[in-house]
Amino acid sequence: MYAGAVRLAHLEQTITLKGWVSRRRDLGGLIFIDLRDREGIMQLVVNPELVSKEVLATAESLRSEYVVEVTGRVSARTQANHKLATGEVELEVSALTILNTAKTTPFEIKDNLEASDDTRLRYRYLDLRRPEMLANLKLRHQVTKSIRHYLDDLDFIDVETPMLTKSTPEGARDYLVPSRVSQGHFYALPQSPQITKQLLMNAGFDRYYQIVKCFRDEDLRGDRQPEFTQVDLETAFLDETEIQELTEGLIAKVMKETKDITVSLPFPRISYDDAMNRYGSDKPDTRFEMELVDITAIAKRADFKVFTQASAIKAIVVKNLADRYSRKDIDKLTEFAKQFGAKGLAWVKFSDQVFAGPIAKFLPDIADDLTKALSLTENDLVLFVADDLDVANTTLGAIRSRIAKEQDLIAPDQYNFLWVVDWPMFEWSEEESRYMSAHHPFTLPTQDSAPELEGDLSKVRAVAYDIVLNGYELGGGSLRINQKELQERMFTALGFTKEAANEQFGFLLEAMNYGFPPHGGLALGLDRFVMLLAGKDNIREVIAFPKNNKATDPMTQAPSDVSDQQLDELNLKIGK
Amino acid sequence: MYAGAVRLAHLEQTITLKGWVSRRRDLGGLIFIDLRDREGIMQLVVNPELVSKEVLATAESLRSEYVVEVTGRVSARTQANHKLATGEVELEVSALTILNTAKTTPFEIKDNLEASDDTRLRYRYLDLRRPEMLANLKLRHQVTKSIRHYLDDLDFIDVETPMLTKSTPEGARDYLVPSRVSQGHFYALPQSPQITKQLLMNAGFDRYYQIVKCFRDEDLRGDRQPEFTQVDLETAFLDETEIQELTEGLIAKVMKETKDITVSLPFPRISYDDAMNRYGSDKPDTRFEMELVDITAIAKRADFKVFTQASAIKAIVVKNLADRYSRKDIDKLTEFAKQFGAKGLAWVKFSDQVFAGPIAKFLPDIADDLTKALSLTENDLVLFVADDLDVANTTLGAIRSRIAKEQDLIAPDQYNFLWVVDWPMFEWSEEESRYMSAHHPFTLPTQDSAPELEGDLSKVRAVAYDIVLNGYELGGGSLRINQKELQERMFTALGFTKEAANEQFGFLLEAMNYGFPPHGGLALGLDRFVMLLAGKDNIREVIAFPKNNKATDPMTQAPSDVSDQQLDELNLKIGK
Repeated sequence: MYAGAVRLAHLEQTITLKGWVSRRRDLGGLIFIDLRDREGIMQLVVNPELVSKEVLATAESLRSEYVVEVTGRVSARTQANHKLATGEVELEVSALTILNTAKTTPFEIKDNLEASDDTRLRYRYLDLRRPEMLANLKLRHQVTKSIRHYLDDLDFIDVETPMLTKSTPEGARDYLVPSRVSQGHFYALPQSPQITKQLLMNAGFDRYYQIVKCFRDEDLRGDRQPEFTQVDLETAFLDETEIQELTEGLIAKVMKETKDITVSLPFPRISYDDAMNRYGSDKPDTRFEMELVDITAIAKRADFKVFTQASAIKAIVVKNLADRYSRKDIDKLTEFAKQFGAKGLAWVKFSDQVFAGPIAKFLPDIADDLTKALSLTENDLVLFVADDLDVANTTLGAIRSRIAKEQDLIAPDQYNFLWVVDWPMFEWSEEESRYMSAHHPFTLPTQDSAPELEGDLSKVRAVAYDIVLNGYELGGGSLRINQKELQERMFTALGFTKEAANEQFGFLLEAMNYGFPPHGGLALGLDRFVMLLAGKDNIREVIAFPKNNKATDPMTQAPSDVSDQQLDELNLKIGK
Repeated sequence: MYAGAVRLAHLEQTITLKGWVSRRRDLGGLIFIDLRDREGIMQLVVNPELVSKEVLATAESLRSEYVVEVTGRVSARTQANHKLATGEVELEVSALTILNTAKTTPFEIKDNLEASDDTRLRYRYLDLRRPEMLANLKLRHQVTKSIRHYLDDLDFIDVETPMLTKSTPEGARDYLVPSRVSQGHFYALPQSPQITKQLLMNAGFDRYYQIVKCFRDEDLRGDRQPEFTQVDLETAFLDETEIQELTEGLIAKVMKETKDITVSLPFPRISYDDAMNRYGSDKPDTRFEMELVDITAIAKRADFKVFTQASAIKAIVVKNLADRYSRKDIDKLTEFAKQFGAKGLAWVKFSDQVFAGPIAKFLPDIADDLTKALSLTENDLVLFVADDLDVANTTLGAIRSRIAKEQDLIAPDQYNFLWVVDWPMFEWSEEESRYMSAHHPFTLPTQDSAPELEGDLSKVRAVAYDIVLNGYELGGGSLRINQKELQERMFTALGFTKEAANEQFGFLLEAMNYGFPPHGGLALGLDRFVMLLAGKDNIREVIAFPKNNKATDPMTQAPSDVSDQQLDELNLKIGK
């Protein structure tokens, strides 16, 4: 029996509970103890006139976080506490044993904690005692349970793929694992089981899934961790629509079972180009409007150099909030805009049918058209970026999200799922001065754009689809290449020599000789999904033992020194 | 619809199937194709008079392992094939498309394959197409599904623990993962989530489980792999009996749901000492008799130096099989015995109430007593080891198992579970000349033997229990230490200085300051369990992509070279 589960239905029963002392109060000659376990908090009452001297002495010695075993009779409280699920009852203690004592904890075990992140991680076992954290981790289990039931019922086979895999240079940075048996050689921890699951399709498994740890040695952000968990699935013989429907069913089940929310299906679909043009993001948050408007044609007519020299002029309208934005506020937005490559941020306020602001003087000729194109009404703030189209989109997309948060434009508990489809196959990497895979080199190009593999790579489109939730990329998938010749063309397009392709991916090309079926799949980021369901903005809140932003565990101090013997066995030396 | 799932119930239906050509036969003007998918094989018939020229041409071009999509009408076979689940029906093909072609595969896709292990691993995606392998992996999923349902129903919380952990010198060799951010420092891949799950108990999770990858960099054997999967569970507040009962329920559910076998509960319990004395093994196979008998008192009376000089004389009786053992056979057993440290193997045959064999001449004085003690009957072979007790037990234990296999004494499909309890806390390591933990340093010593932590370590007993199936250690568990002072004494007993204990395990000791509850748990080896359920003797048969015995993947060639840039980023150099 859990303390948190005691109810009026248990009245008059004698029960035994085990848990932690949340707090003790001595009041009116009685001792009240809040006993906490994973299901909640229950009030114990020790009445000196009804218990032995020993029990009384024990009760008097109790301090916060002592572990106790207690037996007593469930009775009704004279005054119910409606904040607690157990608030209508209390336990009249008859026996009480201390199972373990506790020093004063470095922070109080309660929600809305104000300890630093590193303190929380250093004492994670205490942080996890907080009801909020326990609830997050229970939610996580509920989510994986729903997912498993859904996929099991659809005859997916859960297959474990290896953690010790081959390092491939394409993609993010690998975590390496030196081999002792083959000295000088290294395994890599998987960034995803991508090729392995494709080989399972080749093996005829037909429907595979796995909830699996993946690894990327990248610099960390709020929703990144060195290790993260992926809901990974792959199917043979299904087309992209069937895979998307299957995924929608999965999401719908999770939403129903964990949040009791009925999502409406199918999810909206938006092309990558539309997403960029309308929201300035390939993972648009559609919980609020403020769409980007292309006003290039109109704005070009204004006698304003910034506009006439730019190839694209786009705008967003902050509806009825112009009065909330001082010049200083807008300066801040301008600084923010520059982070995305914009040279600046033009703006006007619209009030009494008139434009105000530094560039208002350039607009008289186009004022009417602009007002119409942007559907302006009283107290609107208009923000413009004039630049090339990419910069204009990306910058306004970021500003759009920032303003929505600043101005609290987003309703809580709203979950907007959508598919972003029609992806470009490649994206240009400034860093490497070459085209790289937007998803990965195994993605199937659309039939009509495939000839551009030997032509203009920017024109190749992928049969790929990302699923987006509230502005986060929840996951993505694609149909994959199953023809050797096409896969070889893809590697060539990516700049691989034949030798390099064979060295890295020869086994995959070889596998394509033997009846590789058409296949495709998807991966969802579990941490991110649970984070969003828990209403958090950092995946650390839904991971039991995460790393900090230096990829370190403040509790165990991992990573740490190892012995010379360990390095010797691996034939490794630290240093250049 | 799966090819392997078509039945008489589908008669006259027009269906579409997708799968692999298992074989094609041209017979009596018709073309017969065995179509294979993950559910089985179904016969297709192409009748040249009923299909278009194109379909016929396609059918004639089919070769083994081509991937096809086929549509047709289900009809009854004139002659049923009772070897196939689909054997009463066939598909009259009307449409046929080739989805992919295939070269000749390096081995035929069928059970009872004769390819070498490395060839099978190199082309694992083809090996996995074999019905047997697919069935093994499906069984594995069925097992994990049963386990999850069982534990979910008992309110266990599935929590993911980190893969990038701290290296600790106690235990097996760690796989290390160099850190790029903290150069010169290393993570370790977990050998088990032992401490982490204990901290979850400290956090109040109360019932935790996880099906999780673990890693040990040890030399490989048939039932070892660098990465293996553990069913890991931990509970707070339960005693060892409750944890064992819980585990028995789990096993019973798996056996029922995967093999339709009702196991009888509770499982037998045997103490470690009894297991060693009666079976010469701490994981006794009780599917056959042939127990070890201690005949020291009797044998000492014989005028035979080998006996009089030994501290222990033990025997096993091979019932009614003496005539199967030539002198040469017994010489082989003697060589085998020497591997376990025995100086030799004495033997006699019992026939017509008389002992025969080289040592028979020493036995007249004790013949009657021996016959009685060993319950000898016609045609028995008696094997003796005279040595110290450990060597005698271990040697005869190994011989016992070998003979049982050689002589086929073990009934198939028999599953003998048992608990081995009352474990010594420490075992002497010849290699390190010190006592080491028999399980791990967090195991709770029994209350009455704990004082020997400062005395004779060989006398300390652990509250530990192993679960054994058919001579394999299926898993093990224990109650854990939850008191800081006791944990410190344990580290001291193991030879840790205070500083070393704090450096390695300081975070655990620290955690014990804050109300660490009594707790304990268990871990089961999933690979081994599924292997035994599948009737295999190598865990590679139940792992999708295992490593070979050089810890290498013959398919991807992992582990492999990495680039200088990768090593530079880690500040590592190969070499001493």
